[in-house]
Amino acid sequence: MMAAPAIGPLSLNTVTVKERWGLAECIEGCARHAIPGISPWRDVLQAMGVGKAARQIREAGLLVSGLCRGGMFPAADAAGRRAAIEDNRRAIDEAQAIGAACLVMVCGGLPPGSRDLPGARQMVHEGLAEIVPYARSAGVTIGLEPLHPMTCADRSVLSTLGQALDLCDALGEGVGVALDVYHVWWDPDLSRQIARAGSRIAGFHTCDWLVPTTDLVFDRGMPGDGVIDIPAIRAMVQAAGYAGAVECELLSRRWWAEDPDRVLSIMKERHNTVC
Amino acid sequence: MMAAPAIGPLSLNTVTVKERWGLAECIEGCARHAIPGISPWRDVLQAMGVGKAARQIREAGLLVSGLCRGGMFPAADAAGRRAAIEDNRRAIDEAQAIGAACLVMVCGGLPPGSRDLPGARQMVHEGLAEIVPYARSAGVTIGLEPLHPMTCADRSVLSTLGQALDLCDALGEGVGVALDVYHVWWDPDLSRQIARAGSRIAGFHTCDWLVPTTDLVFDRGMPGDGVIDIPAIRAMVQAAGYAGAVECELLSRRWWAEDPDRVLSIMKERHNTVC
Repeated sequence: MMAAPAIGPLSLNTVTVKERWGLAECIEGCARHAIPGISPWRDVLQAMGVGKAARQIREAGLLVSGLCRGGMFPAADAAGRRAAIEDNRRAIDEAQAIGAACLVMVCGGLPPGSRDLPGARQMVHEGLAEIVPYARSAGVTIGLEPLHPMTCADRSVLSTLGQALDLCDALGEGVGVALDVYHVWWDPDLSRQIARAGSRIAGFHTCDWLVPTTDLVFDRGMPGDGVIDIPAIRAMVQAAGYAGAVECELLSRRWWAEDPDRVLSIMKERHNTVC
Repeated sequence: MMAAPAIGPLSLNTVTVKERWGLAECIEGCARHAIPGISPWRDVLQAMGVGKAARQIREAGLLVSGLCRGGMFPAADAAGRRAAIEDNRRAIDEAQAIGAACLVMVCGGLPPGSRDLPGARQMVHEGLAEIVPYARSAGVTIGLEPLHPMTCADRSVLSTLGQALDLCDALGEGVGVALDVYHVWWDPDLSRQIARAGSRIAGFHTCDWLVPTTDLVFDRGMPGDGVIDIPAIRAMVQAAGYAGAVECELLSRRWWAEDPDRVLSIMKERHNTVC
């Protein structure tokens, strides 16, 4: 009988403690709790200053499992779509500066007032096609993150892993997927698509689905508090060849209200016992 | 150029006005608003008495686009699963008594405390396999309704049309699908799967996805108030051969608080203008 593969190193996604800690506190918190990785959101990165942040992350010896986030391509007019492209180029520069394993892409929802879902999906494809050469020349891997279908209208028209991999196929080298158990756990086609993803898995995120879930965005659970079989999905991802970090990303009003040191402590314990 | 196919007859799903009207008022309301169809939930049907309801629906000349609902197969133990089978047999009897075009199946979520999603899906398959012969002999079509993935934990592990059609393939004659735009609009594979469904489409439901959506169950929108391209999905369904009713089903605290005659009036206007 084969032993289960060892779990990858834990990484703190900074949004998990965003109400109380900036990036400097997150870096110090990772050191204090012996958490080997970090994945900043761009707001805290920019607030600290990209150069200074890159130095401090490096000095702390942290791996950077991702930068959150590029994307948001669909817009009501050409100027809006152009602005998104420019912002994504800046995100690529930032991901390169901090040595992120990938730039996570939250692709965007329908433009305001639009019901044209195929059109929005086409805008995502076209926006990505414009930035991929720039990312490739910067050595930054694009991590397409399929988001839960309940976010389709306003956050991500990229809804399934299969759809993300079709985009990877179309866009070629340098484009992978960022897989969050929260967004994909329900998918009847999940195991087949994870096997298909193979070496294109650029990031793996954990949290949990609570019953009941009281908010479509800000009610994610701590791993172990919900119904997702995280070890089963992790095993699929590792069987596909992924050996990178296991990033814990909670968007949760309940956990934002807690002392961040307590959040990190519980997160680490759950990483070791239920992920 | 081909003319767009004529829209099917409107049908009132009784849950739309459930806070204020029982089945008798719904039947009278359909007559008053010249709404040709009705689809009762079992609670209002049983409250009126199945025999009496069947007579009054027939006398009112209403078509019955469905009976809501059977399903809820997964359970923590064998006794619970057995009870679900028995209840589904009663639902089949009721659907037969009122001449429902299909018995809509909301298949059920994870058993309490379980994280075994493949196991729950297997329970759904096995439960359906047990009742399909009974439904077939009663002449009642089973309408498997894939529910939005946000309901996977607690209402339906049947999450996509593709998954529902795989079940239809496995279960054979007498099993079709009930398609609600709310549950499937986001699916990147939708047009292909609707074409695959063909004559197995046993019901078609409308409502709308609101932005923002503030509740995972009870915040559905009136057709036209949200972002779903209902005519596009209706055209796919009709191109697949469906010529049945267009059933409006709102689970909405906002609309439940309104005068039901106003709800029916707006529903009918929207059916004619945006569906």
